[in-house]
Amino acid sequence: MQRDLVRRGRLSDDRTGEVAHFLSSMAADHRIADMDVLVDMAHLLMLERQGIMVTDAAQAIMGALLGFHRDGVPPEAYDEEFEDIHAGKEAALIARVGEEFGGRLHMGRSRNDEVATCIRMRLRDDLIALMEETNDLRGVLLALAGEHRETIMPGFTHLQHAQPTTLAHHLLAYEAAFGRDVGRLRDALVRLNECPLGAAAFASTGYPIDREMTASLLGFDRPMGNSMDAVSTRDFALEALSACAVEMATLSRFCEEIILWSSAFVRFVTLSDGYSSTSSIMPQKKNPDTAEISRAKAGTVAGAFTAALTITRGLPMSYNRDLQELTPHLWQGVTAARESVAVFAGLLRTAAFHPEPMAEEAAVGFSTATELADVLVREFGLPFRTAHSVVGRAVRKGALDLDTVEASAVEVAGISLCDRGLTAERLASALDPAVSVASRGICGGPAPAETARAITEREDALKDDRQWVAGRREAVAAAIGRLVTECERLCVHE
Amino acid sequence: MQRDLVRRGRLSDDRTGEVAHFLSSMAADHRIADMDVLVDMAHLLMLERQGIMVTDAAQAIMGALLGFHRDGVPPEAYDEEFEDIHAGKEAALIARVGEEFGGRLHMGRSRNDEVATCIRMRLRDDLIALMEETNDLRGVLLALAGEHRETIMPGFTHLQHAQPTTLAHHLLAYEAAFGRDVGRLRDALVRLNECPLGAAAFASTGYPIDREMTASLLGFDRPMGNSMDAVSTRDFALEALSACAVEMATLSRFCEEIILWSSAFVRFVTLSDGYSSTSSIMPQKKNPDTAEISRAKAGTVAGAFTAALTITRGLPMSYNRDLQELTPHLWQGVTAARESVAVFAGLLRTAAFHPEPMAEEAAVGFSTATELADVLVREFGLPFRTAHSVVGRAVRKGALDLDTVEASAVEVAGISLCDRGLTAERLASALDPAVSVASRGICGGPAPAETARAITEREDALKDDRQWVAGRREAVAAAIGRLVTECERLCVHE
Amino acid sequence: MQRDLVRRGRLSDDRTGEVAHFLSSMAADHRIADMDVLVDMAHLLMLERQGIMVTDAAQAIMGALLGFHRDGVPPEAYDEEFEDIHAGKEAALIARVGEEFGGRLHMGRSRNDEVATCIRMRLRDDLIALMEETNDLRGVLLALAGEHRETIMPGFTHLQHAQPTTLAHHLLAYEAAFGRDVGRLRDALVRLNECPLGAAAFASTGYPIDREMTASLLGFDRPMGNSMDAVSTRDFALEALSACAVEMATLSRFCEEIILWSSAFVRFVTLSDGYSSTSSIMPQKKNPDTAEISRAKAGTVAGAFTAALTITRGLPMSYNRDLQELTPHLWQGVTAARESVAVFAGLLRTAAFHPEPMAEEAAVGFSTATELADVLVREFGLPFRTAHSVVGRAVRKGALDLDTVEASAVEVAGISLCDRGLTAERLASALDPAVSVASRGICGGPAPAETARAITEREDALKDDRQWVAGRREAVAAAIGRLVTECERLCVHE
Amino acid sequence: MQRDLVRRGRLSDDRTGEVAHFLSSMAADHRIADMDVLVDMAHLLMLERQGIMVTDAAQAIMGALLGFHRDGVPPEAYDEEFEDIHAGKEAALIARVGEEFGGRLHMGRSRNDEVATCIRMRLRDDLIALMEETNDLRGVLLALAGEHRETIMPGFTHLQHAQPTTLAHHLLAYEAAFGRDVGRLRDALVRLNECPLGAAAFASTGYPIDREMTASLLGFDRPMGNSMDAVSTRDFALEALSACAVEMATLSRFCEEIILWSSAFVRFVTLSDGYSSTSSIMPQKKNPDTAEISRAKAGTVAGAFTAALTITRGLPMSYNRDLQELTPHLWQGVTAARESVAVFAGLLRTAAFHPEPMAEEAAVGFSTATELADVLVREFGLPFRTAHSVVGRAVRKGALDLDTVEASAVEVAGISLCDRGLTAERLASALDPAVSVASRGICGGPAPAETARAITEREDALKDDRQWVAGRREAVAAAIGRLVTECERLCVHE
Repeated sequence: MQRDLVRRGRLSDDRTGEVAHFLSSMAADHRIADMDVLVDMAHLLMLERQGIMVTDAAQAIMGALLGFHRDGVPPEAYDEEFEDIHAGKEAALIARVGEEFGGRLHMGRSRNDEVATCIRMRLRDDLIALMEETNDLRGVLLALAGEHRETIMPGFTHLQHAQPTTLAHHLLAYEAAFGRDVGRLRDALVRLNECPLGAAAFASTGYPIDREMTASLLGFDRPMGNSMDAVSTRDFALEALSACAVEMATLSRFCEEIILWSSAFVRFVTLSDGYSSTSSIMPQKKNPDTAEISRAKAGTVAGAFTAALTITRGLPMSYNRDLQELTPHLWQGVTAARESVAVFAGLLRTAAFHPEPMAEEAAVGFSTATELADVLVREFGLPFRTAHSVVGRAVRKGALDLDTVEASAVEVAGISLCDRGLTAERLASALDPAVSVASRGICGGPAPAETARAITEREDALKDDRQWVAGRREAVAAAIGRLVTECERLCVHE
Repeated sequence: MQRDLVRRGRLSDDRTGEVAHFLSSMAADHRIADMDVLVDMAHLLMLERQGIMVTDAAQAIMGALLGFHRDGVPPEAYDEEFEDIHAGKEAALIARVGEEFGGRLHMGRSRNDEVATCIRMRLRDDLIALMEETNDLRGVLLALAGEHRETIMPGFTHLQHAQPTTLAHHLLAYEAAFGRDVGRLRDALVRLNECPLGAAAFASTGYPIDREMTASLLGFDRPMGNSMDAVSTRDFALEALSACAVEMATLSRFCEEIILWSSAFVRFVTLSDGYSSTSSIMPQKKNPDTAEISRAKAGTVAGAFTAALTITRGLPMSYNRDLQELTPHLWQGVTAARESVAVFAGLLRTAAFHPEPMAEEAAVGFSTATELADVLVREFGLPFRTAHSVVGRAVRKGALDLDTVEASAVEVAGISLCDRGLTAERLASALDPAVSVASRGICGGPAPAETARAITEREDALKDDRQWVAGRREAVAAAIGRLVTECERLCVHE
Repeated sequence: MQRDLVRRGRLSDDRTGEVAHFLSSMAADHRIADMDVLVDMAHLLMLERQGIMVTDAAQAIMGALLGFHRDGVPPEAYDEEFEDIHAGKEAALIARVGEEFGGRLHMGRSRNDEVATCIRMRLRDDLIALMEETNDLRGVLLALAGEHRETIMPGFTHLQHAQPTTLAHHLLAYEAAFGRDVGRLRDALVRLNECPLGAAAFASTGYPIDREMTASLLGFDRPMGNSMDAVSTRDFALEALSACAVEMATLSRFCEEIILWSSAFVRFVTLSDGYSSTSSIMPQKKNPDTAEISRAKAGTVAGAFTAALTITRGLPMSYNRDLQELTPHLWQGVTAARESVAVFAGLLRTAAFHPEPMAEEAAVGFSTATELADVLVREFGLPFRTAHSVVGRAVRKGALDLDTVEASAVEVAGISLCDRGLTAERLASALDPAVSVASRGICGGPAPAETARAITEREDALKDDRQWVAGRREAVAAAIGRLVTECERLCVHE
Repeated sequence: MQRDLVRRGRLSDDRTGEVAHFLSSMAADHRIADMDVLVDMAHLLMLERQGIMVTDAAQAIMGALLGFHRDGVPPEAYDEEFEDIHAGKEAALIARVGEEFGGRLHMGRSRNDEVATCIRMRLRDDLIALMEETNDLRGVLLALAGEHRETIMPGFTHLQHAQPTTLAHHLLAYEAAFGRDVGRLRDALVRLNECPLGAAAFASTGYPIDREMTASLLGFDRPMGNSMDAVSTRDFALEALSACAVEMATLSRFCEEIILWSSAFVRFVTLSDGYSSTSSIMPQKKNPDTAEISRAKAGTVAGAFTAALTITRGLPMSYNRDLQELTPHLWQGVTAARESVAVFAGLLRTAAFHPEPMAEEAAVGFSTATELADVLVREFGLPFRTAHSVVGRAVRKGALDLDTVEASAVEVAGISLCDRGLTAERLASALDPAVSVASRGICGGPAPAETARAITEREDALKDDRQWVAGRREAVAAAIGRLVTECERLCVHE
């Protein structure tokens, strides 16, 4: 017996199980099944209000749909014999209310606009959650920065000790980057929140449907303006995945540092046991596995974007079945980003940072040499490039003591710094990391006073972002709440 | 003799030509050299105003810089013996004004913030230009849509004839997508327009520099808020490349259709000779090469994004030389997008569309079968799914004439449509493409009245985007104009 | 209670469910569980024979392992509370035979070499199957080519009608490409078939294990030569994925053509219903969905390769947990390739090709113009480039009749072809597609005699490949068979 | 005036400079120009021998071609007004020998087969060179390994100190991986070395050309077997790029380690000045820039592969202009790989490794804990998993001294190890890194005797690879030498 009603008319039934499995989107459809019921409810309510469907039919169907909404889509709808959840759900509906009624729900729409609407709704929820998770991570960073404004540590370029900075300054660099990630996600959310429903297969419909109404009922800002675009574009998915990929690139950098910092070489941080693993053979090991997997997830998201982009390239208008293959990559990428951000926030929140080794390392490797060169410029009148060469030569000689610096100045520039008043004391002060950090108080610098100012500024920015995201979450919830209420009301007025 | 002053102090000079070539960014630095002179000018002006550099030194250097600004960076600065244009330009500067003066320009900054500033400035110009080019393409689409509101053509799903639509409706689908692309580019531009200058190597500086001043002089909205973030992030480049990649995915779809439509099978369009090529061996050929290369450029941009993303993944703070390798991919991706969009707009502007074959094909392949099913629902009381099955069965039998449709209704649903009043005339009208198109007048549909409305709406949206972009272009030009004026004034007040 | 024995000693137990899920590889481990039991059996047999484990312990453990081999790994071993199937299976084992015995199995190895061995074994089976599936597809192509050696069809460049060819010639182009794909898979299989087991965590072990023995028992050609390389490299996975990606690029090209050919414009092929879908709204539609999804799977495989490559980039020696995240991409990519190739072979086998429209189109669009130019060179003495220009000019004028060709020759070259003996009859014969095809009988050309030769040659090549793959499949099966027999013998000799 | 002879006949001349630039492949054609002259020479020689071209015409053309071969293709042929070097070179040829002769060279071929042949020839040279460069790198690794068989260092998993190993063992892991890379390149070379020439546009030709002859003259193993496949496939380019991408993934791992090892934290290696850079602002810095750029080049190659793969996906038969856009990515990827491998070999050859800090670190972080667990199993009868837990508990307590180990054994397993005979001396010996390393002498392990054996084995493998590559280089050179000789002979026999 053929249960897939969509195929019944046009096609004979010689499809093998292998092909049915190949064509089916069921594995990914679990993620959108609940949204699909809401889409049905909104569409049905509109059909009834527009007089396209008679009320008693609408009530019968709505009763079944509200059941699906409360209890979930019934398991038989997920059978891979159906091409997708839309066909499976329609069969379940018809089993409950009969084809005379159940067969009418698909008036004025198609699976093409239906699935596009479901994906946007589900992605909307995911992006909101990812923003909340990212904002939590930013909160952890700002709190840690507040505690570590005076925690001197070495800053690095090329992984070489470069100049002293503070842990707060370092953490704030990441917070700023994650703030921009939230900005990208906000923009993506705004752009995706338009409703494809009513575009039908791509050419809209001759039924007098009201697309404004369904868009509003489902929490969208407006219907999409062109029905062919509505069903065929997946640019919103590409944008969401690219925003995730960029955020994960940043996160992977932080993971790399956590892995370095927790190594026996560096010992700047100890992860809590809850975020570590050990070895099946080396009993002493405590490994930063959560950071490693988060780092690797950046590859997963990059792959998801590549797959999705490759799939859309060169597809003619309008809907092509290729788009079905894109969707699982969307969920895979967004889920990887969400999990990684959430786990990493927990990792940071429970980690122990170690100021002592940080302070020790801040004095290693001539890291205040730049400060010394600047002092030679400001106080001893050397041109910058000359001062840079003098200090560089002294480093090559192996020390930044007075004798070596003096000898270097003579060699490089033919002048005596001692004659100009340089003393061992002045030299020592120029090379003190804490003095060096405190001197760098300009906008964006590591001086504790400046990071205090920066933290306040960033807390305000975070608060704004949190309010915006909360507003979006509430608006969606309110729309769905109203939809359910009105659907229930339709059934009551029997 | 060693000309690279940066290396002089610290390193012995045993670098081979092979290594020098490997390390050099010169090939890509041509693209930022002019920006670099502007950055020097703004930095120098600020140093003088802040009293960090004495006026006579500043005047001497500024005189040379204004020369570079007028006449271009001198050719010797591009020698691959220098690691980059920054080192090459500093050497050229010192050759003109002496190390005593020229060596001072680098106070309070580093190549790390310098190059990040240059890249952002250059990318800003590129994104503005890409938006202008995309807006031109949108203008061509809207003009064509205005001409072809009543040009009936077949719409496709799965590349199968599906339902009739109009050329205007089809073109408007692309215009909507390119409009979102401009939205993404706008967002990217706003986010990138913050100034890294003054972050120095990553730790800012102890000199009392004024980052607000240099940011403003160079047309940025503000300085970046964290100096470590300022030199180490390339998220702005990833965002720009991903926006380009998404736009190119859309463009590649349009290219695919133009290639199809200009084939001997379809003949919907003839490209002008100026956008075609022929064969070296098949003299009759006229090939849509510009569309093919544009389609392929989507791969180029995808590759650029992948490269850039891969390069940044897992880099610890702060600056790493890996970032140098990223920049050429940025230029390659953005250039490919700009060229493709501009060429494609020309292709469309000069192409001849052919309404006759479009109209013929609109009647092919049972494309109004959906309309017929809808009529069976609306006028003859069938449930939608039943009507769908009846028409599908008739198609499988090979015709949509009255006898076949009637027989199918009996088979599928056990009812007679003739008994319910279906006539051959009603059937014919239901299957007329023009009638079908006109009936789909809801929001986003192909009916000529609705596309007229949509065109007006989209013209307003395009006008807004054009004004916004023009505003940005003017703001940058005004800032640079002011900068040059003030620099000239500094030299005059000798 | 803490069931994960690996964590017990070193770490406290404050891991949340979220983190446990994040760290767990269970979802992907289903695919290697059976292999893991074989690895245990081979390792255990070797431990006993080397005298590292006493026989009664070995017998007890082997009894449980043989149970797992017969009946599958018990379900409780898949609980996500375990980090992976290795830990889960060890717990199940200990539950059966006690820690005194069960805890000894891990001597002389680690999860690092264990999982690498399992992945290679499973991938080996997948690559063998993919080669078999690809060889089936090649068989279908050769059979079809044999039927269609005289089926004239248009050949295309730039999707423009170019020159006539035959369907056989077209199909043989794909067969050749798939033959190279099998070559790449063969090479990949040979390179991966070395055994990491015994590398332990990366540093090998002090136990006197016999790596040659376990390698042989598990069907490997030899043990890997460096224990650090053995656990840390995933180049074999990258190579397998890239071979799949290249094959899928070829397959996607064929899919594109099948989609084009089954369109109403072209009608060269009709897919069987079993490989088609219809629309939920457009009842007349018969869509080539299997070809579309196969085309899209090329993107899935490309994404899998990108993800895997990104994950490995820049990982220091030796094992890093990032590698766990790579494995699901390997399975996803290889599975997508296998399914697509198998489904596509079925699609082709059941498709109906239509020689009539092919023949009609072969005469369209001046496709024999090249032949005419060649005739003008060979028989009428024109230089090639001149002949090319003459025919091109005639095409631009719109016809290849005698008057137009003559006029073009006068215009372009100032000569009369009629004076040189060109007649309307000679012209007509030069433009006949069948004559044109028959004339191109050189190596690799479309003339039926040459394609007959080519088919024979390719059938031999396919036979060789099939024998090679069968040999590999048998060798693996034989090794595993011997392993099981020897393990059973160990238990019998109690 | 129109100089591009290919366009002359068919197309009017309204192409803008922008479009000409967009369509032109000139920028990349520099790389194949010399190959193109050889292809012309072989084709011409064959045309003359087959009697397709009269001898005096062949001599005239050959004279000009030999001039191009000796002196290079003349500069005017590179003008972007030509679509490609093939058109430019034909124009230069006709300028020298007249259209009556020069126009005949294109008989029996097309640009499609011509360019495919050129790309394969050039790529063949590049792959041979990359194998030579990789073999040089392997040679450096084997030499270093020979010196450092007893240089104890810590091995890492998860970047945590894990177990002691030797520098030789670590280096041999990379050598093994690069050996497989050479294997992949060998396979790619063999597969690409078939000749497309004579496939013409895709349909071969009616001229009685001899494809075996031209294939042999150009050093190919045979002509490609299907003319449509010959011009349309780029799988050889994808295979070469993927082999480069996999090799670069390995190289990037080594770069990461060199960057780590040269940091102030680790100090295992000091790079020579010739492979380092300094900072423009921090005079003490010595940065591993060559390693960073090599690491980043892995991203460049990944991007090149992605671009090339994306471009080929879904292209219908046969030639499409998209393929032109692929070629620059091929050169970019292969060049990046070649440069990185060559520079990295130099970096290693000139680096100074520091055994003292390596030895110190080998004793850090409980790295011999695994050895201790094994001793508890072998000598004191504990089950492996129990021993692992005992040692893990002791590590958590903070020490591996006798008291702590004993206490842990009591806690975990309720047994006394002292009672079983464990002494402080036995414990110390179990924890000595050198003892631990020496005990791991099985196949693939780090014990000096085993690495000596491995080095000998690998030197043999390297020698084989070097001979194979040298054989290929000589075969190509010999073929080209014969070709030139025969071409010169043709001109002499005037």
